[in-house]
Amino acid sequence: TLKRDAGELHESELADLIEALIPDQRRALVELLGSDFDLAALTEVDEAIRLEIVGYLPNDQIAQAVQELDSDDAVYILEDLEEEDQDEILSQLPFTERIRLRRSLDYPEETAGRRMQSEFVAVPPFWTVGQTIDYMREDKDLPDSFSQVFVIDPTFRLVGAVNLDQILRTQRGTKIEEVMHETRHAIPATMDQEEAAQVFEQYDLLSAAVVDENERLVGVLTIDDVVDVIQQEAEEDIKRMGGVGDEELSDSVMETARSRFLWLLINLGTAVLASLVIGLFDATIEQMVALAVLMPIVASMGGNAATQTMTVAVRALATRDIDIYNAGRVIRRETMVGMLNGVLFAAIIGLVAGLWFDNLGLGAVIAMAMVVNMLAAALAGILIPLLLDRVGADPAIASGVFVTTVTDVVGFFAFLSFAAWWFSLR
Amino acid sequence: TLKRDAGELHESELADLIEALIPDQRRALVELLGSDFDLAALTEVDEAIRLEIVGYLPNDQIAQAVQELDSDDAVYILEDLEEEDQDEILSQLPFTERIRLRRSLDYPEETAGRRMQSEFVAVPPFWTVGQTIDYMREDKDLPDSFSQVFVIDPTFRLVGAVNLDQILRTQRGTKIEEVMHETRHAIPATMDQEEAAQVFEQYDLLSAAVVDENERLVGVLTIDDVVDVIQQEAEEDIKRMGGVGDEELSDSVMETARSRFLWLLINLGTAVLASLVIGLFDATIEQMVALAVLMPIVASMGGNAATQTMTVAVRALATRDIDIYNAGRVIRRETMVGMLNGVLFAAIIGLVAGLWFDNLGLGAVIAMAMVVNMLAAALAGILIPLLLDRVGADPAIASGVFVTTVTDVVGFFAFLSFAAWWFSLR
Ligand SMILES: [Mg+2]
Ligand SMILES: [Mg+2]
Ligand SMILES: [Mg+2]
Ligand SMILES: [Mg+2]
Ligand SMILES: [Mg+2]
Ligand SMILES: [Mg+2]
Ligand SMILES: [Mg+2]
Ligand SMILES: [Mg+2]
Ligand SMILES: [Mg+2]
Ligand SMILES: [Mg+2]
Ligand SMILES: [Mg+2]
Ligand SMILES: [Mg+2]
Ligand SMILES: [Mg+2]
Repeated sequence: TLKRDAGELHESELADLIEALIPDQRRALVELLGSDFDLAALTEVDEAIRLEIVGYLPNDQIAQAVQELDSDDAVYILEDLEEEDQDEILSQLPFTERIRLRRSLDYPEETAGRRMQSEFVAVPPFWTVGQTIDYMREDKDLPDSFSQVFVIDPTFRLVGAVNLDQILRTQRGTKIEEVMHETRHAIPATMDQEEAAQVFEQYDLLSAAVVDENERLVGVLTIDDVVDVIQQEAEEDIKRMGGVGDEELSDSVMETARSRFLWLLINLGTAVLASLVIGLFDATIEQMVALAVLMPIVASMGGNAATQTMTVAVRALATRDIDIYNAGRVIRRETMVGMLNGVLFAAIIGLVAGLWFDNLGLGAVIAMAMVVNMLAAALAGILIPLLLDRVGADPAIASGVFVTTVTDVVGFFAFLSFAAWWFSLR
Repeated sequence: TLKRDAGELHESELADLIEALIPDQRRALVELLGSDFDLAALTEVDEAIRLEIVGYLPNDQIAQAVQELDSDDAVYILEDLEEEDQDEILSQLPFTERIRLRRSLDYPEETAGRRMQSEFVAVPPFWTVGQTIDYMREDKDLPDSFSQVFVIDPTFRLVGAVNLDQILRTQRGTKIEEVMHETRHAIPATMDQEEAAQVFEQYDLLSAAVVDENERLVGVLTIDDVVDVIQQEAEEDIKRMGGVGDEELSDSVMETARSRFLWLLINLGTAVLASLVIGLFDATIEQMVALAVLMPIVASMGGNAATQTMTVAVRALATRDIDIYNAGRVIRRETMVGMLNGVLFAAIIGLVAGLWFDNLGLGAVIAMAMVVNMLAAALAGILIPLLLDRVGADPAIASGVFVTTVTDVVGFFAFLSFAAWWFSLR
């Protein structure tokens, strides 16, 4: 009965169940289900778990099960396999199925061609609405679900598309070409998935035709998979800004520790750099220990202000809200905001420090350093992401690590050198 | 001709154009377009710009234009208006339109009821597929686009739904109740939009019925609007983690500075707290200035490690990948990762500091402090978000500010107190 219950679950519920189990139970469940195991569930689990399960599923069971899947889900599972396993599985598939999957797998990762589904409905422009409906009633080979019908010429070149609601509200005698809309939003198969997702968002699409370099229809990209892309890209940005690689919750302790090690190592380098700056002023600190007590405040405020600016900049770049037309305006705005908050917090901390150590000169010194560092924070926060984007790198890697190096170094240097000069210490 | 060109743009393209202009040009464009101005574009611009434009559009022009919109877009524009403007506009609308918009506006913000569209197609279960198609061909009052037909009983209670592709592939004589699926995923109107979005993601929906407390169909939530919700929620999380409120790129310098001020003020408080901890050890630092040089390293490494853990935790909570079943496992994993990286970096920094200052004791002290702080980082990074979530707060506000307070305080305290003890300074 567990077998029957599990068989009745939606693929994503089965996926959640699989993720909740420990590896041994997982294997037992998969083996219990046998050929009833719906491989679609594998598209909804963490990559580590997917690899674990396909690792012990026999290739001929995969070949059998993959035929039940939409081609995009089949590709999603096959793409992570070893090349020889891929070949063995593909060789057991019927000809058309094999060609379709092979074509998707030949497009680079993270492109529309790799994410598309090769099953779609296409009719010629001279058919009537009635003919189209009759065809759909009779053909047993339609995709499991679809939301538009594509219109193609005899060479498979895309000429338009009709949404299903449009077909349903039109009289049988009307020609398809009279109700179709030109597909202005056909997606080239080589387009990056993130760019394709932006087209979907902008034009509120449910599905879009994917065309090859000759404008020939090769597949369809559907909104449910685009939603996954959007999630995945947002996730990627958040993780990069937080200094974590593409780890998943199911990764082991060793994998996790290793993937975070590199970021921490970079941070160690930048922290040592900040220490070297402090080291330049050891004689100054020796004469006035209050400097050591206060200096982290300047650095910390700068770090947070820079993180704020950077967060806004990275998001705006990801959603294409910053472009060459308004970059200048955004830089000016961030600089002004940095100045304004810099002056405000300089006044606050100057007063606090002056009273705390009963030394108004010290208050003046920390206030000056605060203004300088808040300005540096604004500039680093906006310019570093813009620069990374300009050179083609992902602005999200301008994470805490890089931007806060600037504010640490500038913060410590400004504060300690102002102090050395003001009190003529050294 | 500008008027004609702008009139032909897709609403989202018009929105991009509006956002690119300066306020004066914007106003000129809106006035030039006059009654040709497609209010749907306002659903795609920043809130500040939307408020600016509806501010000078006369109420009767809004009332006129709002009737051309889907009800969800109309609500999106009306919800931000002053109550008296809302009332004046609603009073100029036809009765059914007014009732529909009023009902949506009566549901709380960020609920499915507020986001739903009140236009939908619904038929009784005993109709045949043929009758349904004929009805759609004749009725001139259908929604602009739709992807499923709902099935209701005479009291408007929802009994099922049929996707359009299912209708198209079925013979005319078949009864709707034979091809419909039970709508297991009907969304209560009071459900939070984020939760509704999760249902869409999990079950790959294109649209979903929204029902009131009596299970009566009141509207439909569509995937294009859910995509906007997903974007908006991801954006919110990223911004909160980065310590920025819900500012937008079009906000003025003053608004931006003010919205960031609060976060920075909290950070100032926590930075001063860290300084107080350092202040406890001023005598120790006076005797060994190297401590002042090295102490930011311990704090900075802890801060970054905590940010990594926190990022993963906040994301996993947002996507519901952490629940009570695996929270224990995740906490254990993070602790182990913290230990492992703590020991590794303790060895590295211990060696570096020992050689740099030619003092192996100092190396041992910083190594011990590093292990302690990396462990504190792991615990703070995972426990603070989990706790915030448990008490119903948004875990994303466990941003840099709060979590790094812990690592600053623990880092400085551990390092300086170990040093004071080891070297018996003081
Ligand atoms: Mg999942
Ligand atoms: Mg994959
Ligand atoms: Mg990408
Ligand atoms: Mg959209
Ligand atoms: Mg829209
Ligand atoms: Mg799919
Ligand atoms: Mg990206
Ligand atoms: Mg709104
Ligand atoms: Mg929310
Ligand atoms: Mg999904
Ligand atoms: Mg899916
Ligand atoms: Mg809508
Ligand atoms: Mg949220």
